[in-house]
Amino acid sequence: MAPNVPALYELHFAVPMAGATLSALNVSLDEHALTIILHRLRPKIIFVDSEFAHLVSKVIDNKNNTHLQENHYDHKPLLPLLVAIHDVSPDHRTQCDLEVPEYEQTLATGESDFQAVSPADECDPISVNFTSGSTGTPKAVAYSHRAAYLNSLGLILRYDMGKSPVFLWTVDMFRCNGWCFTWAMAALGGINVCIRNMSAKIIFDSIQLHKVTHLCGKPNILNMIAESPPVDQKPLPSVVVGIIAGTFPTTRVLERVQELGFNIVQGYGMTEALGPALIRPWRSWQHHHEDNHDDHNLKYREGLHNITLEAADVKDPTTMQSVPSDGETFGEVMLRGNTLMAGYFGNPEATREAFSGGWFRTGDIGVRHVDGCIEMKDRARDAIVLGKELISTLDIEAVLLSHPKVAEAAVVAQNDVVAGQVPCAFVKLKKGKCSNSGEIIKFCEEQLQKTAMIPKSVWFGDLPTNSTGKVQKSVLRESVNAIGKHCP
Amino acid sequence: MAPNVPALYELHFAVPMAGATLSALNVSLDEHALTIILHRLRPKIIFVDSEFAHLVSKVIDNKNNTHLQENHYDHKPLLPLLVAIHDVSPDHRTQCDLEVPEYEQTLATGESDFQAVSPADECDPISVNFTSGSTGTPKAVAYSHRAAYLNSLGLILRYDMGKSPVFLWTVDMFRCNGWCFTWAMAALGGINVCIRNMSAKIIFDSIQLHKVTHLCGKPNILNMIAESPPVDQKPLPSVVVGIIAGTFPTTRVLERVQELGFNIVQGYGMTEALGPALIRPWRSWQHHHEDNHDDHNLKYREGLHNITLEAADVKDPTTMQSVPSDGETFGEVMLRGNTLMAGYFGNPEATREAFSGGWFRTGDIGVRHVDGCIEMKDRARDAIVLGKELISTLDIEAVLLSHPKVAEAAVVAQNDVVAGQVPCAFVKLKKGKCSNSGEIIKFCEEQLQKTAMIPKSVWFGDLPTNSTGKVQKSVLRESVNAIGKHCP
Repeated sequence: MAPNVPALYELHFAVPMAGATLSALNVSLDEHALTIILHRLRPKIIFVDSEFAHLVSKVIDNKNNTHLQENHYDHKPLLPLLVAIHDVSPDHRTQCDLEVPEYEQTLATGESDFQAVSPADECDPISVNFTSGSTGTPKAVAYSHRAAYLNSLGLILRYDMGKSPVFLWTVDMFRCNGWCFTWAMAALGGINVCIRNMSAKIIFDSIQLHKVTHLCGKPNILNMIAESPPVDQKPLPSVVVGIIAGTFPTTRVLERVQELGFNIVQGYGMTEALGPALIRPWRSWQHHHEDNHDDHNLKYREGLHNITLEAADVKDPTTMQSVPSDGETFGEVMLRGNTLMAGYFGNPEATREAFSGGWFRTGDIGVRHVDGCIEMKDRARDAIVLGKELISTLDIEAVLLSHPKVAEAAVVAQNDVVAGQVPCAFVKLKKGKCSNSGEIIKFCEEQLQKTAMIPKSVWFGDLPTNSTGKVQKSVLRESVNAIGKHCP
Repeated sequence: MAPNVPALYELHFAVPMAGATLSALNVSLDEHALTIILHRLRPKIIFVDSEFAHLVSKVIDNKNNTHLQENHYDHKPLLPLLVAIHDVSPDHRTQCDLEVPEYEQTLATGESDFQAVSPADECDPISVNFTSGSTGTPKAVAYSHRAAYLNSLGLILRYDMGKSPVFLWTVDMFRCNGWCFTWAMAALGGINVCIRNMSAKIIFDSIQLHKVTHLCGKPNILNMIAESPPVDQKPLPSVVVGIIAGTFPTTRVLERVQELGFNIVQGYGMTEALGPALIRPWRSWQHHHEDNHDDHNLKYREGLHNITLEAADVKDPTTMQSVPSDGETFGEVMLRGNTLMAGYFGNPEATREAFSGGWFRTGDIGVRHVDGCIEMKDRARDAIVLGKELISTLDIEAVLLSHPKVAEAAVVAQNDVVAGQVPCAFVKLKKGKCSNSGEIIKFCEEQLQKTAMIPKSVWFGDLPTNSTGKVQKSVLRESVNAIGKHCP
């Protein structure tokens, strides 16, 4: 349990090479979530950054957790060895007063000629990662050595990492093992630049100091860069490739970061796919852009799958037939191949369900284009159901985001006695801007072809997000449907 | 059986996708060798370039081959379907008058919605390739789908192929499936430039016309380029990476091709390793060169193994212990990993022997350096045995090649009643140069530290080579030892 410190990177190798399984934990877990996860994993050793040592110690020592009993978790006491990692970087030293072994001192007692333990079977787990929990309780996802290895190679090939990349750690290593870039960078013999905390200033300073070539992470990194004060911005030594997965940023943000010297590649993935599985390379995006294609339509087109993934398709989830490549027919995005999770840790039933029909069910709605690209339309649970038709909330959000006053937007399905479901918009305005429902709805009427896509109501304010920065649409959906039709 | 025509490239995909196993045959096989190989393989279909159709037809129709009977081969008649490939390139059209189906017409009758057959097991064979036979009868080497796939990825990574490589086919596709670049290029979506015959003019013209980025093959390609008349040489649109495996060319040739715009990467491999398994990247070579290290010593240092190969080591073949990394202690170069052959086709005994001790025995002598590099010293059977000591004939050849009058050189062990074995040199002089044994031996005395390394006799003339251009040291060894000590 540590932020992106060098020790966590080292443990991505040390733990598997000792024949054990690694689980890098989210440092923003609260006591309750950490209790559940530790009782689920029952680790033998916990390496913990000193900043979080007291929290971990408290969870371990809590002998009587009623929540665990209620949820039928194994509540036998946890007896792991605790090892504290002290951050020694000048700008953020961490220490702790617990009487536990310290990481570097522990290392110094090791055998220098220790022979790494190879897995007995390449399908044995190398790590367990937890989903972000945007769809309920975080799920424990087991990665095999084989999947991690092949996915790492796939990343290198897809992102054309070159021979001597310098990688800035702006994606959390506890997120799909840093999207497998932990292992990919070692395979390349590249340089890892670990940063504990992230800010635009730290990003620019690190790029200039270490001649960074690649970074990746959530779209908020781009917002951070685009909106940084000019005093923090430094000229880049050379083009920096940024690989971004999640809701894609606005054209304005993209253009700004491009001006600053970044090339942005869009990824689509999930914990179960070990990170990004589909990507759209920068050139193709730029090319489309230059051709003056409709930018809204391209924004969510995810391109082709990693070369090491066997297949990605959009299928009718009942018949398992591929939808036609017409750019219109909705289906479920499904993945198949060696680079997917081995399964949900200790949950064969959920694993069977996730792979039913021989394909990993992403739960995302998409269409197929003639050029082979898959375009994401929505999360299945987020789409608006209108009789037999599905309406993509992402398509409506793309229009809202193109409004000059709108900073963020989320659209959810609101139950309606007549139509079944209608779109309801939540909007965060840019600083210093003011608007009202009428103005936003009128704009949508001008931009959207289908009447059914025009939001019936608009709410203004901050959007709720989870620990990874994803907008929690379930929260919005619940709130709007609890209120009923009394929208402003 | 075809030279590097587009059809042969296509068949690298079509045959495995039909659920069959591919064997690309050397077009320089004579009737006798082809008879042995076809009775060994017993193919269902033979796709043959029209130039070789009569030869293949003759071998198939020969019902009474006494050689086969003598060697206990299955001499039941071969009944393959013959399909003729007609080369339609303007500079070399091939036709044949046999009444057999034509390739393109046969393709046109195919099902456009044919579903590719996946292998039942990834360890099933995708292809069978024959060794060059420098160590006796060509051996049939089976490649698995898994090995071919991983080795293709390994090549891309090791040679930093970039996203849009343009590959000039100067390596034969029947040689380790074009060192697996057939599949690697498809994985990258690169461009294949197929050439039927090779000359410096064709190489330069192709590079300029198609903006070639990569080529690979035998060292004689570099000689061909370096010695080409200026009228055939064209300025390269950008640096072309050349990957060369086999006896390394002289510094003079390397410097000349570098001046012409090529970056040369050295590879070391064999049919059983699916092509190059160890390589030394250009930068490292250049770097050493600039540091004014001894070029002779560096010439045969092969660097590190492909990332997809599990391990390469230099071991005592009896104890299986790694030799010390001192750059001096001889051992056998051994390889281990997923990217090696599945085994010798139909010969489990030879397979067991090749992998005895869990490592693939290359039969090459090498040393390990402190920097992790392996340096090749000699073929085990070529080295000179002096009591308990081995002398590398390559080390002596490197000195001979540095003599200003020497074009080619080969050193073999000559039996000696006193010393056991002594070095005997065979030298081909450059055009218009003349020399004698005394001059060459004196040069060696000045350059070589150990007296035992100085050739006791020197022969002048052309060196015998096999179909891949390798000097046949066994022929030289036999001839010199048949003559006894009556060397000039």
